[in-house]
Amino acid sequence: MALIVQKYGGTSVGNPERIKNVARRVARFRGLGHQVVVVVSAMSGETNRLLALAKEIQSTPDPRELDVMVSTGEQVTIALLAMALKDLGLKAKSYTGAQVRIVTDDAHTKARIVSIDDNKIHADLDAGHVVVVAGFQGVDEDGNITTLGRGGSDTTGVALAAALKADECQIYTDVDGVYTTDPRIVPEARRLDTITFEEMLELASLGSKVLQIRSVEFAGKYKVKLRVLSSFEEGGDGTLITFEDDDKMEKAIISGIAFNRDEAKITVLGVPDRPGIAYQILGPVAEANIDVDMIIQNVGADGTTDFTFTVHRNEYAKAIAILKGVQAHIGAREVVGDEKIAKVSVVGVGMRSHVGIASAMFRTLAEEGINIQMISTSEIKISVVIDEKYLELAVRVLHKAFNLDESSTPLLTTSK
Amino acid sequence: MALIVQKYGGTSVGNPERIKNVARRVARFRGLGHQVVVVVSAMSGETNRLLALAKEIQSTPDPRELDVMVSTGEQVTIALLAMALKDLGLKAKSYTGAQVRIVTDDAHTKARIVSIDDNKIHADLDAGHVVVVAGFQGVDEDGNITTLGRGGSDTTGVALAAALKADECQIYTDVDGVYTTDPRIVPEARRLDTITFEEMLELASLGSKVLQIRSVEFAGKYKVKLRVLSSFEEGGDGTLITFEDDDKMEKAIISGIAFNRDEAKITVLGVPDRPGIAYQILGPVAEANIDVDMIIQNVGADGTTDFTFTVHRNEYAKAIAILKGVQAHIGAREVVGDEKIAKVSVVGVGMRSHVGIASAMFRTLAEEGINIQMISTSEIKISVVIDEKYLELAVRVLHKAFNLDESSTPLLTTSK
Repeated sequence: MALIVQKYGGTSVGNPERIKNVARRVARFRGLGHQVVVVVSAMSGETNRLLALAKEIQSTPDPRELDVMVSTGEQVTIALLAMALKDLGLKAKSYTGAQVRIVTDDAHTKARIVSIDDNKIHADLDAGHVVVVAGFQGVDEDGNITTLGRGGSDTTGVALAAALKADECQIYTDVDGVYTTDPRIVPEARRLDTITFEEMLELASLGSKVLQIRSVEFAGKYKVKLRVLSSFEEGGDGTLITFEDDDKMEKAIISGIAFNRDEAKITVLGVPDRPGIAYQILGPVAEANIDVDMIIQNVGADGTTDFTFTVHRNEYAKAIAILKGVQAHIGAREVVGDEKIAKVSVVGVGMRSHVGIASAMFRTLAEEGINIQMISTSEIKISVVIDEKYLELAVRVLHKAFNLDESSTPLLTTSK
Repeated sequence: MALIVQKYGGTSVGNPERIKNVARRVARFRGLGHQVVVVVSAMSGETNRLLALAKEIQSTPDPRELDVMVSTGEQVTIALLAMALKDLGLKAKSYTGAQVRIVTDDAHTKARIVSIDDNKIHADLDAGHVVVVAGFQGVDEDGNITTLGRGGSDTTGVALAAALKADECQIYTDVDGVYTTDPRIVPEARRLDTITFEEMLELASLGSKVLQIRSVEFAGKYKVKLRVLSSFEEGGDGTLITFEDDDKMEKAIISGIAFNRDEAKITVLGVPDRPGIAYQILGPVAEANIDVDMIIQNVGADGTTDFTFTVHRNEYAKAIAILKGVQAHIGAREVVGDEKIAKVSVVGVGMRSHVGIASAMFRTLAEEGINIQMISTSEIKISVVIDEKYLELAVRVLHKAFNLDESSTPLLTTSK
């Protein structure tokens, strides 16, 4: 008998029929003798409907009131799922974040969980109930309703699993696990049985939108056993996210190829090469709440340097305008940019102990005549920025070069 | 400077534009220096939408979970109204029933208010906030969400006014006050400036659906000054609901003509005239949760009697079936019924001290050839059941006979 936390996203509870399907799956786990806590999101579309309603009233809705409003989305789902479970003859009870109590800080619309009271839930589980908890929400110390920001239901699931010391946290999504890359681009993409937390973090932040980054960090911090499964297919074991130390044997060096075509590149040319210049360039960008991803700076020969970074494509125009505004002040020669870029990354904890991954990657791209515009590396990933039109080609040839194809026998495995 | 509780129903907050109108009215009261607490219902249609969703999951939705779900309707409205108020530059803060805390018993879907914590609201009012409270909901002692049953937002408004010792509770509806009868039937119907609680109770229960009965009882019990106003028209003073003792002078004997065409009549003929027979007839009806309105029994000559009562027309078929089932057991001769009836009532505290009201009523109906099928009286009303086809005629002639027409000078006023 295990204690399992299951999390279902908006698509998995998108209509009454799907909610009944979730109830049937929960019933099977109960039938095996497991205790089950279910975390649910709002039905798909509901959060956007509520946001639109709020914007009809106030162009920038008040954050406290927006949380009061948006949190009703999950509240509706928990009630419906509890009804569906009772309809199957199970004992079930729903809780809002406030009722649990999931205490957060008071940063409305992007709150962080501070503590979770596990008393009621444990008592209910011991009394044979399935406990259904609203994801994405909590209350601050003063009892004001807060939300964790979009996608925060994953975090609720992991945080509950940590607080309850659950045996496993299962995240049900519309994919059946984590793949070596996007199967729509590379049909030979394989589902990974296991992946390390660090790889998952890199894959998630690079655009494999399977799990919320924050939830993965949370799971790593509290050593929660996390599994990604499909809510629409039965029987698969999904992908288990592990700690590297658990299982070093037979691990592939490279776990997957991630990519992102939402970025744009901006270069500030001929910047005086003096201390504080990076701050002078990125400060105004950060103040405008524009997130910056890759940042590259090379020292030039004539006392000036070129400074390049990437931003989300939606914020490209805004960022360019800001930089043109400060160009004279910082003494830069020119501000140029390119929206037609893509980022491709090779990810894997194995590369730490293997030289030659970077050169293999660059050689593979060179053989296809793909020019590399930017390079950025971390301990477990190498990212390159290339012309957008080569994206699919690059992903396919890298997937093959690192033996990630389903049919191939991995050559680059390690037994140490 | 006064403390005013205003309650707006679902139609008054039915869309963003109407919510903004409510905010503008509240702003005007704030501008006059008043403290304002606003109680709101769910946007019209929302509660029915949620109920329908629940029924797709469970044919008889679990009451605890139904309350969790349906209470989101008001939660959305409080957030939207608070946003609209802030958009006008006012300070505003929303509270769910649980946040206030409005503590109720644990009778889900029809809970009763036990206590209200007024600390937070008073503190917010003193800090210059408009406080927006979700109507219709509360929490039980264990923190489970409860609802007061449909229409319960009026009760929330009155209960809050009592707890906060407000100077006035204003109920905004789609009518601009209480009329002597339905203006759609009698164009000369007059809006009453004042009406007593008792008259209001009789008028409400007889089908003048301006206020929830329970809220009027509550107001009477806690001596809350209650006023009914239009949320769509400006400037009127509506109808003030008073205690009889306040103002006995110049009061009309009859305050209005109420009617109800939702009822059906059932007669059990030839019942043995023995103790306990009323219970034997009505017991099975009550067990089936069928509400009974008028009940009449006359002693017959031959040791048997006829027993007649009225039920809601929707439950007529069910009630007839139940009685035919027990007919043999109670030894009745026959069960007959009539769906084509209507009830007309003359209401007024003044009639207590005036003989002749009943005979004036009966004479008026007789002059029009309207046969009276049943009669029932209380201290402040006389009700008759007549053929449905005469309903409008009866209301019109009674309205005129008791000098309720706008143009007429009331003859039957009293100065004692």
